[in-house]
Amino acid sequence: MNANIETLTRDVTSYMAQVGRTAREVSRAIGRASTTQKNQALNAIADQLIDQMAELKIANALDMAAGKEKGLDAALLDRLELTDERIVSMAEGLRQIATLEDPVGVISDLAYRPSGIQVGRMRVPLGVIGIIYESRPNVTADAAGLCLKSGNAVILRGGSEAINSNQAIAHCIKKGLSLAELPTDVVQVIETTDRAAVGALLRLKEYVDVIIPRGGKSLIERISKESEVPVIKHLDGICHVYIDDEADKEKALRVAFNSKTQRYGTCNTMETLLVAQSVAADILPELTRMYEDEGVELRGCEATVSLLKKHSMDMSAAVEDDWVTEYLAPILSIKIVENIDAAIDHINRYSSQHTESIITENYTKSRRFLREVDSSSVMVNASTRFADGFEYGLGAEIGISTDKLHVRGPVGLEGLTSLKYIVLGDGHIRQ
Amino acid sequence: MNANIETLTRDVTSYMAQVGRTAREVSRAIGRASTTQKNQALNAIADQLIDQMAELKIANALDMAAGKEKGLDAALLDRLELTDERIVSMAEGLRQIATLEDPVGVISDLAYRPSGIQVGRMRVPLGVIGIIYESRPNVTADAAGLCLKSGNAVILRGGSEAINSNQAIAHCIKKGLSLAELPTDVVQVIETTDRAAVGALLRLKEYVDVIIPRGGKSLIERISKESEVPVIKHLDGICHVYIDDEADKEKALRVAFNSKTQRYGTCNTMETLLVAQSVAADILPELTRMYEDEGVELRGCEATVSLLKKHSMDMSAAVEDDWVTEYLAPILSIKIVENIDAAIDHINRYSSQHTESIITENYTKSRRFLREVDSSSVMVNASTRFADGFEYGLGAEIGISTDKLHVRGPVGLEGLTSLKYIVLGDGHIRQ
Repeated sequence: MNANIETLTRDVTSYMAQVGRTAREVSRAIGRASTTQKNQALNAIADQLIDQMAELKIANALDMAAGKEKGLDAALLDRLELTDERIVSMAEGLRQIATLEDPVGVISDLAYRPSGIQVGRMRVPLGVIGIIYESRPNVTADAAGLCLKSGNAVILRGGSEAINSNQAIAHCIKKGLSLAELPTDVVQVIETTDRAAVGALLRLKEYVDVIIPRGGKSLIERISKESEVPVIKHLDGICHVYIDDEADKEKALRVAFNSKTQRYGTCNTMETLLVAQSVAADILPELTRMYEDEGVELRGCEATVSLLKKHSMDMSAAVEDDWVTEYLAPILSIKIVENIDAAIDHINRYSSQHTESIITENYTKSRRFLREVDSSSVMVNASTRFADGFEYGLGAEIGISTDKLHVRGPVGLEGLTSLKYIVLGDGHIRQ
Repeated sequence: MNANIETLTRDVTSYMAQVGRTAREVSRAIGRASTTQKNQALNAIADQLIDQMAELKIANALDMAAGKEKGLDAALLDRLELTDERIVSMAEGLRQIATLEDPVGVISDLAYRPSGIQVGRMRVPLGVIGIIYESRPNVTADAAGLCLKSGNAVILRGGSEAINSNQAIAHCIKKGLSLAELPTDVVQVIETTDRAAVGALLRLKEYVDVIIPRGGKSLIERISKESEVPVIKHLDGICHVYIDDEADKEKALRVAFNSKTQRYGTCNTMETLLVAQSVAADILPELTRMYEDEGVELRGCEATVSLLKKHSMDMSAAVEDDWVTEYLAPILSIKIVENIDAAIDHINRYSSQHTESIITENYTKSRRFLREVDSSSVMVNASTRFADGFEYGLGAEIGISTDKLHVRGPVGLEGLTSLKYIVLGDGHIRQ
């Protein structure tokens, strides 16, 4: 295949159109493949990854060397690296996907109508999915596995710095597909590092049903702006915890602490803490000390700053920008609000509609928060860090959607499918 | 309000942005409105339509007169006209929507996870829906009713030829909303006939969640091409019936006849009949005579033409274009195919993914057809004419989607909603 790359990149647009056409063609075959066959492929790919561990590491070493030469920073190089452990974990991820229930063909709500026909809905694959991601090569295997299990053809476009690693993983995938007697083009990994390939992919309306970008905010922003194909995405995770005046103090401290500190770099980490006025003096001094002991930098609203000054604690003042910033770091903004109404207003104004949690023992307020907060995950007395496909029982996650069309929240296999209507009759005609 | 129109249209873009902003603002209020309040509004609007029947007809008479002057054809004028009967039927439609179950707030799949949290999904409104339609003024009431019941704010843009009728209906809607103490801007009917308003609406990504076009193919094509907001639509209804070699002959004749002749102008009418080779000689002569008696023009593939010649029947030959044409008229193309594989291939190649039906007594083939035909409705032994929101039990229908993202097939209240995750805990934190 490598011999063709040069020629192919000469005309990226026609290369991408060919990739799209091929994906559409093979999408029928994978759409009707049996569960067993798809699982065989997933396990065969996992076997290949283990068998070819040495080759994968050689390919990865090329990327690592090029990356160092290009002066990639340590974090990027770390994400790029394929260790034995990471290869084993990719393989295990695929075997795990094989154990998940197959969503394709599941029939629901099949019921008789007054006319005598039986009407139900059958879950079907979306068709062709395009995934655009950055440096982590493990996404190649993960994303391929989820698309395969959900009966979709997939076009994968990884970061140029991982091109050799991705091609080596692609080789394992194709081998596994072929062992399971599935078309190897069900998974296509773009072979050119030409940036124009991304633009071309985003215009393949005719062949691609949905684009899922995975990576940093700027990548996702660029893609969703440019794409003519629908995009499943979240841009920001500006998550809130609201400690209500009827919160259980112990739960409030625990959940608010965990939501911020369990991991800093994840999209479901709390970025702003809201506290009801009447309990602020009771809760904030203790809670902010917990954060400070953990090394979390705090930025408070005026009321918070002056409250903590009384307790001899200094805190920098939050500016407007703090309420709309996803720190992804040990920084937290804190605001004292009058009551649940002010909390919901603040959230619906500043939130990125990812995840918000209320801490309260009050029944009515918990119901109101659940109904009125317009985010993809809304919680009561639970850490925002639970907003995750695995924690929700989806078995796996290809991303999180903060949009409303098609799918909201963590996206698993079901999010990669659609429902068609089926009608069973016995010669029924419309009167 | 009328005094402002002149000024407003001077800058359509800023007028539409204001409409969008307002819709987004009031979407929160309608999203959390109680079922009772929404039903009160629906019934109050219905009452207003009946009370103001005389005013509606005066406004409509202005449109009819202008239409005649502009030389609109008889069919268009007929669609435009508001008779007593049609006004009563609009009102009844709204009362009917009031009786439907409220989808908003319905919680499903609430289950405990190993971590101890309870995870479920709650149905939520999409937010703001834009509807662009042509001459029928009744769409103004229907669409407003469905959006209202599903908790969405709506922006309605009707045909310029119906502007007076639509404004009169809008007046009733606003009165009804106000009687139910809901913000009157939950339903906004665009007050300008400036065509630039449509373009501006299609660019309101920030404020509008989905656009639903209703009307002819050229309108829908233009909108889906131009829109930056996601569109729920179907372009064509090129529906197929396949009579299998193991079909019950009586059922085959009945369903194939009904699928074509029950109504000609609807999107779920069969446009191409496929017949298995081995039963063609038995079925086609009788069936084609039934069609001819009904005045249906037939266009056959080569094999069909020569078969019927043997039975002294003349038929024009179908050309390639016939397989991709939605006649919306008493015309039918017929093709003899080798077997179910050839039928599925033909359908997946030429169908518009609207509705297809197989006539067979064979268990295995019925299952294959249901699984492998990639259309929004797939049927066994039933007329394609059943593909309809009312027949499927949705209670009402705002349109049909042949796309896969978000919703496929007839779109009722549920299609105007999304699912968010809810998490209930008791101070649970992520380990």
